[in-house]
Amino acid sequence: MAGDRMAAGGEAVEETRRFAPRFDAAGLITCVTVRAADARVLMVAHMNAEALRLTLESGVVHYWSRSRGTLWRKGDTSGQLQHLVELRVDCDQDVLLARVAVGGDGGACHTGRATCFYRVVGRDGATLTFAED
Amino acid sequence: MAGDRMAAGGEAVEETRRFAPRFDAAGLITCVTVRAADARVLMVAHMNAEALRLTLESGVVHYWSRSRGTLWRKGDTSGQLQHLVELRVDCDQDVLLARVAVGGDGGACHTGRATCFYRVVGRDGATLTFAED
Repeated sequence: MAGDRMAAGGEAVEETRRFAPRFDAAGLITCVTVRAADARVLMVAHMNAEALRLTLESGVVHYWSRSRGTLWRKGDTSGQLQHLVELRVDCDQDVLLARVAVGGDGGACHTGRATCFYRVVGRDGATLTFAED
Repeated sequence: MAGDRMAAGGEAVEETRRFAPRFDAAGLITCVTVRAADARVLMVAHMNAEALRLTLESGVVHYWSRSRGTLWRKGDTSGQLQHLVELRVDCDQDVLLARVAVGGDGGACHTGRATCFYRVVGRDGATLTFAED
């Protein structure tokens, strides 16, 4: 957060109507992807400028796979295409929020689960339990 | 994602019950914070190991402020303390999801809004509109 930063035209970045995503040093921006129907967080991944452009142009979410070093249209092999309902950006424009409708069986995680966030961290900071939902 | 990575004991990292958060080269892990009541995404910030430990021990969410270079108990000045309802971790243990109940006026964004994600990206990839919710 940097409330004193100005966007083009002298507007504070938090109030501007100009989309100016802030990619990191690797050219990536974090994207939180949620199910539009119930706001459930499905996954967190990254986009580069091309993935972002393709997402907006096609209406299907694209990411940049850091592990594979490739552009990645989520669902191409699994059928779990993420149809973009709405894309948001946060106050300082360094995180995206994609609200999606998921195709195929509705899942998002490569383990086969609906969400990547299926484990709860114990207050001991050492153990995990599997969530029931 | 790296489905072939093994945790201690030979379990796949996705199936282990051992919490082993993967901090990045700067010692940070991304945390998505949502309102427990309705799953709405409030903000995305970062934790270092100490912020994570304090969050679990105290039940109040702590972050590491990258801009200020300090530990940050969210709400200390605003009253918008984030009481931890549940902490989750994703499949490859490099993102946290904090489900919280927010104190004070219930807001999370430094602009005074409930959420940092108050602007919608236009399909033109250039303009933003302010969301009504």
